[in-house]
Amino acid sequence: MRIALDAMGSDNAPAPDVAGAVLAAREWGDTIYLVGDESRVKAELARHATAGLNLEVVHASQTVTMEDKPGSVGKSKPDSSMHVGMGLVKDGTADAFITAGNTGAALSIATLYTLRRIEGVKRPALTGILRFAGANLIMLDVGANADSKAEWLAQFALMGKLYAQHTLNVDEPRVALLANGEEEGKGNALIHEAGALIRELPLRFIGNIEPKDVLKGEADVVVMDGFVGNIFLKSLEAATSAMAKMIREELMRTTRTKIGGALARPAFGRVAKAIDPFEVGGAPLLGVNGVVIIGHGRSNDTAVKNAIGQARKAVSGRVIESIATGLKTYSLA
Amino acid sequence: MRIALDAMGSDNAPAPDVAGAVLAAREWGDTIYLVGDESRVKAELARHATAGLNLEVVHASQTVTMEDKPGSVGKSKPDSSMHVGMGLVKDGTADAFITAGNTGAALSIATLYTLRRIEGVKRPALTGILRFAGANLIMLDVGANADSKAEWLAQFALMGKLYAQHTLNVDEPRVALLANGEEEGKGNALIHEAGALIRELPLRFIGNIEPKDVLKGEADVVVMDGFVGNIFLKSLEAATSAMAKMIREELMRTTRTKIGGALARPAFGRVAKAIDPFEVGGAPLLGVNGVVIIGHGRSNDTAVKNAIGQARKAVSGRVIESIATGLKTYSLA
Repeated sequence: MRIALDAMGSDNAPAPDVAGAVLAAREWGDTIYLVGDESRVKAELARHATAGLNLEVVHASQTVTMEDKPGSVGKSKPDSSMHVGMGLVKDGTADAFITAGNTGAALSIATLYTLRRIEGVKRPALTGILRFAGANLIMLDVGANADSKAEWLAQFALMGKLYAQHTLNVDEPRVALLANGEEEGKGNALIHEAGALIRELPLRFIGNIEPKDVLKGEADVVVMDGFVGNIFLKSLEAATSAMAKMIREELMRTTRTKIGGALARPAFGRVAKAIDPFEVGGAPLLGVNGVVIIGHGRSNDTAVKNAIGQARKAVSGRVIESIATGLKTYSLA
Repeated sequence: MRIALDAMGSDNAPAPDVAGAVLAAREWGDTIYLVGDESRVKAELARHATAGLNLEVVHASQTVTMEDKPGSVGKSKPDSSMHVGMGLVKDGTADAFITAGNTGAALSIATLYTLRRIEGVKRPALTGILRFAGANLIMLDVGANADSKAEWLAQFALMGKLYAQHTLNVDEPRVALLANGEEEGKGNALIHEAGALIRELPLRFIGNIEPKDVLKGEADVVVMDGFVGNIFLKSLEAATSAMAKMIREELMRTTRTKIGGALARPAFGRVAKAIDPFEVGGAPLLGVNGVVIIGHGRSNDTAVKNAIGQARKAVSGRVIESIATGLKTYSLA
């Protein structure tokens, strides 16, 4: 497989990005194009043992920062590592692009300047892969569109179903709408309207789902508008990290609980790993005409490697082709 | 103080409701009207030592269940304990009403059949009091209105400010809008519009707030629409309880972590208490012309007692009067 990686993506780029690429190349033998400032990327590469690995540096003279305005950076920085990396996918040099950089910029550069949308896609969606206790599912949209229409949500349902089917190995993915209650009367106007549309689609729609049942893994695809989805995702992260902090602090209060905490450490480690977003690494921008995986800005080398792993699943599952075909069939219906 | 309590409210009514009333009457010496099925409530009361307490049973022949449709139960069950209890507030017999029953029904019976709205209130809001790690704040709306208008959110901001000022003892409450990012460009159309309106109000508006900063207590009043608010609240509960469950399970895996867990128990206990919604007990329905506190269906006796405590704060803080005056001033402006 041929992977284009934004070597300038993460908050601490290029170190974790390059290290993640080295890990991935070592594990899977892929060709990885490291896109970014050539001298910085090469200097970073020199710190690793790369003999026998297929790592190539592709120079990009500009870097998108978190301060860049997503809407205009495609124009103001046409030689950014994002722009160049997505270009490699567009011209067929690479099969997928991965970045841990500015999400809004990636969305805008993908949609407006490089890969553009799959034919028939109204809006691309940012996805989140949730692996939490029993859950292993895809949520979308978690932030691409702050104001959504019901038809967009219906497309998200279809795209999410195809993604789950082809990468999570679920035969008939259960698709649900995130809402304030399971009962049919629950939800807001958007949810009611989207539910009516989704019900007509060739997929297994199980209706509304509440947050607690999302975490139990009672659906494989959870559809929401980008504003709600982003708050949902951030709420889960905020609650778990606030709780972890409280536990750490309370354990330090007495000698007894300090000792207890030390003995319990392996259990805490397993919980931390089970809810660690770096174990997932990244999630696709669905609807864009090419595999684009977005990782966390705070990504470390493992997260970058795992994001590359997500890209590999999407490529080998032929997700883009499935969505293109799925949308054609649906728009004929 | 004179408190009307829905004795038939909680999932296990009337036991926890009556027990909570006994605790409250003992602690604060209030007169408490226990509204519900007279024979069942009296039988429950007989199980407690009530000598010297001012507990009165007020008969109501009907009970609202979770299956009752909120919109029609005010008409179909005019002698429900909710209806009768709110009537006691309306006619001046009681200063406040507390229920752990069907929230939608309480909202509808309050707004359409008994207390009605404070003059000038467009929509009442269901509030949530968040006490979580560093936070002690009021969130609204957490579920009364699934589809909100910007002007309603602006009123929620004003009502929330007055509530915080008069019951949380904050001089100049910091008011924020829950959003997907702090930056001014973040949020959806509703948030942008509401932000512009709130900026004109006589309150300390600090802009958008993200979930993690809500949990850190960086605002005293967090405004949101009822759909988002309900999902937000449920996400926090779901994440913390899923995490607690994972920790319990992982601790049980080995002898070492079992012992660690046993030693660490006091620390876990403090964390559990710190995030326990029963410690708050309930939160007001703001905008209704009378103090109405809504508790959790799962309330135990402590939760019911604490919900009565919230009612006491709202009554002694003269929240209703402050909102009535505040809204008049605002609509003149």
